Amino acid sequence: MTLIKTTDDIKDMARGAVFLGTGGGGDPYVGELFLLQQLDDGRVPQIVQPDDVADDAFVVSIAGVGAPTVLVEQLVSERALLYLLERAQDFYGRKIDALISAEIGGANSMFPLALGARANLPVIDGDGMGRAFPHLEMTTFSIDGIPCTPSVMIDDLGNEVTVNVPNDRLAEDVVRGICNSLGAMTIGSFYAMTGAQMKQSTVRHTITETLEIGRCIRESRETLEDPFEGLMAYLNDPNRGRYAKIIFDGKITDVNHETRDGWHFGAVHIQSLTDPNDTMIVDIQNEYLAARRNGKTVTIVPDLISILDRETAEPLTAEMLHYGLRVKVIGYSAVPQLRTPKALTVCSPRQFGIEEDFVPVEKIA
Amino acid sequence: MTLIKTTDDIKDMARGAVFLGTGGGGDPYVGELFLLQQLDDGRVPQIVQPDDVADDAFVVSIAGVGAPTVLVEQLVSERALLYLLERAQDFYGRKIDALISAEIGGANSMFPLALGARANLPVIDGDGMGRAFPHLEMTTFSIDGIPCTPSVMIDDLGNEVTVNVPNDRLAEDVVRGICNSLGAMTIGSFYAMTGAQMKQSTVRHTITETLEIGRCIRESRETLEDPFEGLMAYLNDPNRGRYAKIIFDGKITDVNHETRDGWHFGAVHIQSLTDPNDTMIVDIQNEYLAARRNGKTVTIVPDLISILDRETAEPLTAEMLHYGLRVKVIGYSAVPQLRTPKALTVCSPRQFGIEEDFVPVEKIA
Repeated sequence: MTLIKTTDDIKDMARGAVFLGTGGGGDPYVGELFLLQQLDDGRVPQIVQPDDVADDAFVVSIAGVGAPTVLVEQLVSERALLYLLERAQDFYGRKIDALISAEIGGANSMFPLALGARANLPVIDGDGMGRAFPHLEMTTFSIDGIPCTPSVMIDDLGNEVTVNVPNDRLAEDVVRGICNSLGAMTIGSFYAMTGAQMKQSTVRHTITETLEIGRCIRESRETLEDPFEGLMAYLNDPNRGRYAKIIFDGKITDVNHETRDGWHFGAVHIQSLTDPNDTMIVDIQNEYLAARRNGKTVTIVPDLISILDRETAEPLTAEMLHYGLRVKVIGYSAVPQLRTPKALTVCSPRQFGIEEDFVPVEKIA
Repeated sequence: MTLIKTTDDIKDMARGAVFLGTGGGGDPYVGELFLLQQLDDGRVPQIVQPDDVADDAFVVSIAGVGAPTVLVEQLVSERALLYLLERAQDFYGRKIDALISAEIGGANSMFPLALGARANLPVIDGDGMGRAFPHLEMTTFSIDGIPCTPSVMIDDLGNEVTVNVPNDRLAEDVVRGICNSLGAMTIGSFYAMTGAQMKQSTVRHTITETLEIGRCIRESRETLEDPFEGLMAYLNDPNRGRYAKIIFDGKITDVNHETRDGWHFGAVHIQSLTDPNDTMIVDIQNEYLAARRNGKTVTIVPDLISILDRETAEPLTAEMLHYGLRVKVIGYSAVPQLRTPKALTVCSPRQFGIEEDFVPVEKIA
């Protein structure tokens, strides 16, 4: 059973959430503060496996929506999270039995845990991405036909909007527009589903993975000369069936950021420490989307790209990047659910405006 | 008692609604078709005076939201209007007792009448502007503290959004953003109020005024050499306490239109028929906002500016304007409720980005 009961656990999980956030999803620090507050108050989140939940249970995702830069600067209050729960139950006309993250990467990994601990609701060890993605329709839930809406959204100023837009691509536009209009951090309930649907569609064990990645980095730092050694061993553990590779090692020479239409756009340029002609450019749209070494794509969505401090292996969100930082870049295979032909119709490079087909990171390597 | 029971009545009312629409509010033709359909089916709208409604009655505005150019091209179905009524009653948890227009100018004059006739609900002889305005917070309801939301919005594709944003200026942004995202004609229920609130805040007799303006133009055309003679006599009738003036007579030499962010922006240039150096420019943001003759402001919001065909006195929406059209421009005093200091905080020229103070048209003249 996955347990989050110490300050270290929470910090580890937040660290792992930044890794899986692939630059986006917002800094989990905000959620971390909440969760630490719950712990201080003697409340521990109850994390359950999908199969522990009844088929007829009512499960929803609780998530913040907004540009990551906004997510970092706007705090969500405990009061707002509890009020959202109350409004959501009222709106759906049902008691919510369990919470699940829509995306495990970034801040949205933390809100369900914080609210779950506070309201004594179980939180499922899983999510709808196994990473972070910038669009609401880019979840295994949506891919499996569990619609993003009906949804209730609130903010800390007493504003409330409900959305029932059956097409998830359109729902994304509507929800994004509402958040932009409200101009502040908006939290909402999405992907209302039954326990049976959740079991079929959830990317499993991702709270565990987040916690383990963060813990592995911390422990490797303490016990190994190169913390990446421990991290790569964990990520490539044959029992996990995934693939990870350090795809670049260098110094950031340029970062451009822009927050526009509720999105964080940009690119980061990295130069090898040993060969100035050996460079990598990583494209950003909230998340790191494509990593190209000397013009050749080496990892691309839906596979994960993480940029980490080269000494401490601390994963870095896009907002943390700046000139002169020495980093390593990891390419990490996405969960199998995101690589199916059906999934690629919503999260392939072309869905982000990149005119390339998806090639798995292990094939490029 | 105001009666709308013949095809002529409906066409007259639509004509008057274009006049009071001051270029915007959408072409009432869409609503006209609906209302004609109701008449064909033997249904006549029941128009009531504000004081005929009980103080504890539940009154809402039914309105389409979107750029006028969209309003013209997208039809609203009878099914959608009836569905909105059903959803609104469900959302508010109350039976709706009467309907009222939020704006009497343009298409939104017609939807409550069409739905009222179809669903057998009385429609109040009044509205919240006595004209058309581009923003939801620019109504006497909003000015008097009757909030625009909670509101239900639907479209013809099964999408539904509810908005509860207590600040009407912010609600405007949220609603506008939703309509832009949905990309089609959206209809909604706004300004839910009691009969008592309605009596205090309504701009009265505006259905009557709309009908009378349209009828006056039609009859003047048939009986007078210059139909403007009849129209000006009606508008300036001392019993009505308003002021109207023909502020220009000329030929359109240029029109620029742009639909951007859900708004229709533009300007129309008019040249005198007798003196090419005598020109008028009318600024457009959905509605005609300011008329300047040789650089000097002669009518400005909240006062009304209408552009009419110079031969037939047919009022023209901004979309109908084109090079070569010969027109007369009328400046018409706004209803007193829009000229109070409180009202001017939401509908003065500065609220539209025009750096001028409001001066009543009769003072400029």
